[in-house]
Amino acid sequence: MRVLLVGAGGVGTAITRIAARRPFFEHFVAADHQLARAEAAVAATGDARFHAARVDAADQGAVTALLAEHRCDVLLNATDPRFVLPLFGAALAGGATYLDMAMSLSHPHPERPYQECGVKLGDAQFERAGEWERAGLPALCGIGVEPGLSDVFARYAADELFDEIEEIGVRDGADLTVDGYEFAPSFSIWTTIEECLNPPVLYDRDRGWYTTAPFSEPEVFDFPEGIGPVECVNVEHEEVLLVPRWVDARRVSFKYGLGQEFIDVLRTLHKLGLDRTDPVTVGSSAGPAAVSPRDVVAACLPDPAGLGDRMHGKTCAGTWVRGTKDGAPREVYLYHVVDNDWSMREYGSQAVVWQTAINPVIALELLAAGTWSGAGVLGPEAFPPVPFLDLVGAYGPPWQLREGG
Amino acid sequence: MRVLLVGAGGVGTAITRIAARRPFFEHFVAADHQLARAEAAVAATGDARFHAARVDAADQGAVTALLAEHRCDVLLNATDPRFVLPLFGAALAGGATYLDMAMSLSHPHPERPYQECGVKLGDAQFERAGEWERAGLPALCGIGVEPGLSDVFARYAADELFDEIEEIGVRDGADLTVDGYEFAPSFSIWTTIEECLNPPVLYDRDRGWYTTAPFSEPEVFDFPEGIGPVECVNVEHEEVLLVPRWVDARRVSFKYGLGQEFIDVLRTLHKLGLDRTDPVTVGSSAGPAAVSPRDVVAACLPDPAGLGDRMHGKTCAGTWVRGTKDGAPREVYLYHVVDNDWSMREYGSQAVVWQTAINPVIALELLAAGTWSGAGVLGPEAFPPVPFLDLVGAYGPPWQLREGG
Repeated sequence: MRVLLVGAGGVGTAITRIAARRPFFEHFVAADHQLARAEAAVAATGDARFHAARVDAADQGAVTALLAEHRCDVLLNATDPRFVLPLFGAALAGGATYLDMAMSLSHPHPERPYQECGVKLGDAQFERAGEWERAGLPALCGIGVEPGLSDVFARYAADELFDEIEEIGVRDGADLTVDGYEFAPSFSIWTTIEECLNPPVLYDRDRGWYTTAPFSEPEVFDFPEGIGPVECVNVEHEEVLLVPRWVDARRVSFKYGLGQEFIDVLRTLHKLGLDRTDPVTVGSSAGPAAVSPRDVVAACLPDPAGLGDRMHGKTCAGTWVRGTKDGAPREVYLYHVVDNDWSMREYGSQAVVWQTAINPVIALELLAAGTWSGAGVLGPEAFPPVPFLDLVGAYGPPWQLREGG
Repeated sequence: MRVLLVGAGGVGTAITRIAARRPFFEHFVAADHQLARAEAAVAATGDARFHAARVDAADQGAVTALLAEHRCDVLLNATDPRFVLPLFGAALAGGATYLDMAMSLSHPHPERPYQECGVKLGDAQFERAGEWERAGLPALCGIGVEPGLSDVFARYAADELFDEIEEIGVRDGADLTVDGYEFAPSFSIWTTIEECLNPPVLYDRDRGWYTTAPFSEPEVFDFPEGIGPVECVNVEHEEVLLVPRWVDARRVSFKYGLGQEFIDVLRTLHKLGLDRTDPVTVGSSAGPAAVSPRDVVAACLPDPAGLGDRMHGKTCAGTWVRGTKDGAPREVYLYHVVDNDWSMREYGSQAVVWQTAINPVIALELLAAGTWSGAGVLGPEAFPPVPFLDLVGAYGPPWQLREGG
């Protein structure tokens, strides 16, 4: 297998460190619009299979050319969701398998944004499923931790643990703190704003996909391994769009343990229009410049990938499932916890970034072995879950099952 | 009198509308870095005494040249406080009287920002007082509404109402609402951030000037004319630096009726570093651009000067004074209230902007008549207050005195 990774930010860099320990590929190009970031990621592996390149992720032609130049058969997208469509298109044009960790962006319903879906997450990718089927290639979408491992958990529950599923609810929570900063998100603020301020999407078998208001339906979920109870709210997330396509469940939801301070910050950013991505014009040293307010918010905050040394605590990603087995009600929480001290010591990557980055590498390994195969636009739940879950424990902390939800 | 006004934003434009009704000058140049703004302000007066010009307020030489070109004897600065020093310098170099409505910026004490002053508001101007004295010219600083009218009230209280003054406390509050916006400040957000997030300065006769933490010492002040009780907090403001130089009082403070929502917004902006003025680098359509986060915040919000049509309510500026008269304790609140409906109907200017803009025009009128005169760097309390207060009522709603504080 010959891999082109686009994006050498926090997750991309962690992917190179994780992949460097595995033997399943022979050539791995890390490309970024900042060549220095790609070179630093490659140098840190000390592995001759890795090569750095400069590429603009928005330039589909340039990415296709880079695939050809390095004879890569896989494109792994580790950029932010704005670049999904050009990279998805570049992989198809270049005859490469495609993987991403977030899907093409949604657009709210113009009249009833908090009741009905407009353009849904991933719609622009599923529209082109026929092209991927005809090309005989898989586009494996949403294969980070959430979406990703959470979807694999959903499929595993359906295959192994339940006869009938009433509800699948992804629940994400952490007790991470960062020394020395008043406010320091542990994940990309750009993506967090996008997923938290868009209308959350829910699935109901009778109603189909529908939306609610941001931060709706707060619930306290008790996270394992000492994290404890955290207030979680509805957030727009790919699992709700992916799971029902391959797994039969009456309801699918995603709730994120944001905490009140984070919710207040996001509400204020929205109130002031600072969540906007359409440019405003301000003065700069080189004259008037059109900049995205959300990019400026991100530029003012520390890079979450660089905070690992100051971070303490654990992060938990998991899928709560309620249904019946052998005629009796059953409830489980399938989860994966990473302790930041462990991930920093072992990989030099902070917990949230590391927990995201292992999943596309596991998927690449299963695709290389032929254990996972297919054609079309596919979610992680379209593939057999057990081989994937077996590898999670080989990469680091194993996944867990809590009986009783 | 021949006036050069620099800055044709909200306050500058209101100044032209107010001045156009007065006969005391023969030539009035409105200059702005956006010529179209200056031209619009001039055209709206329909008065042949007014002329538009383009100038960069940061370019001291260009401003001095413009003074000479139009043979102006007065420079009135209606820009934001970043341009105080070049304009102050241009007036001195050009032999012109200088007026502004905010003074040169402060810098917090490097080690003890919430206990001790670093560089104070106006320090960079007072440093050059000797040059103005030798030139025989007045630099009249802080002659808006606050500072400005509030300082005139302080001097009037000392001259006419009290034998001894214990405390002078400027108190500013409003009940303004803006239709159609979730959040729309009624005054420049740039200046509001500057004054609210800097350490508030206080004066005590024994201790001198000192600082506290932002938003400290909350108190509920009951504002007149139906505005009612509003929570006020300490804010850095010029009056605290100006009043003690000319008026004898044991304590001087400034509290602003921000309200909890506004305080929360300012705290969040600070927490995220979005109050910063030093540039961050972000992408723009023309490549990487270095922009000030605070400028981006301002660009995302509606221009307060353009909100008058959607605004309702009243704004109150005033000075609360406590002391003794003829051996008995006395407490008064001297204030000026403007109803937005009135100022929009009468001048097409929103209430806060109009209330700011009348004061430099009154001062110009008194300087033109020789009623106010002097040399050096002077605050509004350095001049006889009664002629000023008499003119307030000639321009619009009269000022008021509430006995009992």
